Parts: sequence; C-alpha cells; structure tokens
Amino acid sequence: MKIALDAMGSDAAPLSEVKGAMTVLAEQADLEVVLLGLREALEPFRKRIEKTPNLEVVEVRQTIGTNEAPSEVLKTKTDSSIAVGLSMLKQGKVDGFVSAGNTGAVMAFSLFSLGRIQGIKRPAVGALFPTPRGHTFVLDVGANVEIKPAQLRDFAVMGRIVMERIFHVPQPRVALMNVGQEPGKGNQLIQEAYELLAGAPINFIGNIEGSEVFRNKADVIVTDGFTGNVVLKFAEGMGEAVLFTLRTTGKKYRWRGWVSKKLFRDFIGGLNYEESGGALLLGVEGPVIISHGRSSAHAITNALRLAAFTAREGVVDAIKEEFKGT
Amino acid sequence: MKIALDAMGSDAAPLSEVKGAMTVLAEQADLEVVLLGLREALEPFRKRIEKTPNLEVVEVRQTIGTNEAPSEVLKTKTDSSIAVGLSMLKQGKVDGFVSAGNTGAVMAFSLFSLGRIQGIKRPAVGALFPTPRGHTFVLDVGANVEIKPAQLRDFAVMGRIVMERIFHVPQPRVALMNVGQEPGKGNQLIQEAYELLAGAPINFIGNIEGSEVFRNKADVIVTDGFTGNVVLKFAEGMGEAVLFTLRTTGKKYRWRGWVSKKLFRDFIGGLNYEESGGALLLGVEGPVIISHGRSSAHAITNALRLAAFTAREGVVDAIKEEFKGT
Repeated sequence: MKIALDAMGSDAAPLSEVKGAMTVLAEQADLEVVLLGLREALEPFRKRIEKTPNLEVVEVRQTIGTNEAPSEVLKTKTDSSIAVGLSMLKQGKVDGFVSAGNTGAVMAFSLFSLGRIQGIKRPAVGALFPTPRGHTFVLDVGANVEIKPAQLRDFAVMGRIVMERIFHVPQPRVALMNVGQEPGKGNQLIQEAYELLAGAPINFIGNIEGSEVFRNKADVIVTDGFTGNVVLKFAEGMGEAVLFTLRTTGKKYRWRGWVSKKLFRDFIGGLNYEESGGALLLGVEGPVIISHGRSSAHAITNALRLAAFTAREGVVDAIKEEFKGT
Repeated sequence: MKIALDAMGSDAAPLSEVKGAMTVLAEQADLEVVLLGLREALEPFRKRIEKTPNLEVVEVRQTIGTNEAPSEVLKTKTDSSIAVGLSMLKQGKVDGFVSAGNTGAVMAFSLFSLGRIQGIKRPAVGALFPTPRGHTFVLDVGANVEIKPAQLRDFAVMGRIVMERIFHVPQPRVALMNVGQEPGKGNQLIQEAYELLAGAPINFIGNIEGSEVFRNKADVIVTDGFTGNVVLKFAEGMGEAVLFTLRTTGKKYRWRGWVSKKLFRDFIGGLNYEESGGALLLGVEGPVIISHGRSSAHAITNALRLAAFTAREGVVDAIKEEFKGT
C-alpha cells in the first residue's frame, strides 16, 4: 500500500507533511509514502526523510498557490505536486493521494487525470462530522455549488458505500438535510431529491434538520455543496470559538491545566477537523483525500491513515460496481 | 409599552409563558404583557396572574398545532392566540407580539394581519448568533427557501437597521455568506447578490465563510433561508453536543459542579438559543418575535425583552423610512 502525499500543500508545508508521514509510517509497517515536493523545500528535511523507512521523495518543479484558478493550473502546472501525484495514482504507481493544497486544483486534476467513475455525473466531497456518539458522513461539502436532484441521489449512494466500507456500518441510515422533518419541506429541488432518495438503493430515513446532525440519527447526510460547505466551515469556526472560550474561562478559574489536557483530548479533539484528517473526494477513479490548508502534522497523519483505509477497503471499486451500467 | 404574548406557544405552554412574563414584569415597571390563551389552560395560573401587576389575559378559543399548515389555519383558526395577538398588534392595542408556537402560522398571520412593509417583497427571519466577542445578526434563517438576489439586498438593509437600532452598532459591517472569500465565489444567485449588495446603502465587507461567523468579522450576515435555517439549527445542535460532552466529561473527572455553574453561565449560556429569546420577523408592519418551540421561562423572558426593545427603538419605523418610495 503506497500513498502519494503533496508535500507543498499545507500552510506549514512541508513540515506538517514530513512529520505527519513519519508518524504514520512508524505505526504501519506495510505502508509506503511518496512525498511530492520542490527539491529546495524538502532539502532541510533530507536527513530525516532518508532515515525513515518506506518514505521516498519525488521531486517536482512547480507549486500551486491557494488562489490560482483550477482552469489555469490545468494548463500551466503540469509539473506540480498535485498534477504529478494524481498522474502517479492514475498509472497505478500509488494507491491513493493526499493534499492539503488548493482544493479546486485537486478536483480539477483528479477529474482530468483519474476521470469520473462511469454513471456519476458530478464528484462530491464528503466529510466526517464527529458526534458525541460516533460519526456522521456529510456530502457534498464543497464540490458543487449548483446542484440537480439526481446528483444528490448519487451522493447518497456513495455516502452509503463509504459508511459501509470504512466504518463497517450495516445499512447506514441516509438522510436529506432540510429545513424541517416532514416530507414536502424545503424548496423544489430538495423536494424532488426527496422522491429520488426514497427510490434509491439506500436505507433512506427522510429529512433531517441541522439540529440533529449531532444526535446520532443518521450515518450519512446528503446536501448541496453550498449548504454543506457553509455548515462544515461553520462547525470548524464554532469548534474554535468553544476552544477559545474554554481556554479563557479555564485561565480565569485556574483550571487551565485540566482543560488543555484531558478535556481537549477527549472532547474538543473530536470536534477538531484535524482528527478526521481530511475529506474524501468521491466519484473519481481513485482514493483522493483533501485536507485542510491549516493541517498540522497530526492532521496529515490522520489524512494518510484515511487514504490508506479508503484504498484497503476498496471504496472506489465498490462505487464503480454500484454505478456500473447506470 | 405593551407586548402580546402567545401563551399557548411553547412545548411547556403556558408555564414557560406565565413565568417568563412574571420575570420581565418584575424588572420593567413601564412594561405590560397581555397573555393570550385558552381559559382552561390558564386557569391553574389564575391566582399568580392576578397578583402580577401589568399582566392581563385575553382569552381565545383555539390553538394551532405545530404541524398545521399555515394556509389552512389562516381560514380556520381566526380565534387562536396567534391570530388574535397579531390582530391586536395591527389595531395598535399592543406594541409587539411574541410566540413560541407554529412559525409558519405566525408568519402567515403576520403577513395577513400586519402586511408587508412597502418596498419589501419578502419578510425575513433574523437571529442573533453569540460569538466570543459579541453578536452577529444572521438573516434569513427560515422564511424563504427560494430566494432572489434582490431579496438578499433587502435583508442586508434590514439587518443593518436592526444592528444600528437594537445594538447601537455604528455602520454595521454586512457580509454575504459564501463558500469562499473572493468575489466570484458561489453559485450564480450569490454572485448576482454580491453585485447588488456592493451597491446597497450598507457597509458591505464582501463574502464571509462559515468558519468566520464566530470571528467578529461581520455584524450582519446575509444568506438564503435554507442555508440560514440549517446553520441556525446546526449551531443549536452543536451547542447541545458541547453541553452533553462537557457534562459527561465533567462527571468523569469529578468537576461536574464547576461545569454546571460558572462555565455554563459564562460560555455555554451564550451559545444557548434561550439567551437571545427568539428571532425577529422583519419586513412586516410590527415587531414580531418568533421563539423556539422548546422555550423555557428564561427564553420567554428574553423574547419579551427583545420585543419591548425592538418596539422602543423604532425598528419597524426605521425600516419603513428606509424603504419608502422603493
């Protein structure tokens, strides 16, 4: 099992990437990681990389900035870490790809190099939301800001497969994000999607409201990329506000020590996006993990774990099988 | 200053309503509250009500269930607490109306009895989100699941007026909820709205992402009712999850006492929807507050405070003045 890692992706690149890879390699003997980056950026880490078993480097000559347009970089940045990593995945040289870089560029090169899975019109980005009793997988969280009901149906089926394969949830409960629980709620697009989901090969449990995301009512929640993206980032911001206030309050009441250790690890740790490592790009012909630009080494470690798990559990093949002939 | 209060609204009606009214009346000598409810429901509280100064009762003969269709109740429930309360507001017998009942019914009767403010095509529901450093006013959080760019512009102007009048924020910073900060992000509707907001009589600061809601970057955030409703309820659910986990962790580490007192009051209290009391229905000809169905007496007290404040600060007149002739 070999995962390609964009070493130029995160805000702290390549430090987060090198350290994140070293941690995961120390725990998984059958895993290999390929670091893709500029020679000069990786040079300060050369000794550390050399003495880490199963860690190799593929040098590239370009990087992609966070604000570069995907349509442009497709033409101009073919020797970037993102382009080369996804090309290696396409050629079967690696089994998965992880990047904390420009999300639009990862999606564009994924579509260009790997291509869409037959039968799926639009890929989706799915993210795990931690809840007090487990996880909920929400998609789409950003790939599609304009959407059609049939795409929401495809997302639901892909979400089901992820929860079955990666989390071994039998018959995952799939819900449609809406402004009320009763059928007939929401705008026309959502109402049409409701009908399609009711007829899809999933355990459809109906509409779910925003308040229920954390109540362990659904294993998969389907929504359009606009709403999903706003909610994902909102959760991140609210988690940070919780953290900030706990730290401040903790200081005031002199139990800062407690807060910064046990409580954070047990709870806030779960709300922190770093724990899931990244989001899955679904609907393309290979396991691709999109990590947060602010990823720490810990987040990268988790992203590599998720990529390896996605590859090992055959998520992409399962999606291909499901959509074959559609 | 007199506020009509739907005594049949909340899940714990009329207990929350009676107690909530008593608290606010004890602190505001120039305030009067009119309780609207069924005789039999209010009977157990008769003595308490009679001995509370400035608290009167108007008996109605109907109630509206949470799942009744607004279009139906408009015809059949004209002697309900919602219908009668809004009719009293229209007639000038009271200065504001508060209900924790059927939101759709409150909106329908508000439009029917009070009517829209001239120049505003669609009313909006606005809610205050607490942040570690203050508040952000988000609208629409539920009135409109289909939207046009021009409506988002109207919402922005109304939001500006609310923050100016109620919170005395000079030149409130108004932002558009979007999936990225750069202009040009989002779907076509959002891009068109961006252009309209840039030309509106507001201090428009551009797009804002979900992660920044808690970062004190904007005083007003404009969004469609679908996204706003999902985010509002999501915040509520996440707040509850935080609470649940803190309680559990607190128990485990034997500092439950601390958690349930100071920390909750200082912080979780702020994230709790009960603190804001309710949402403002904006764009209709009178101050209307829509409270959560699960409102406690404390939430009702805050809703009555908000209604009195909205009426005293002339929010409705200010909106009428702004939209005059448009």
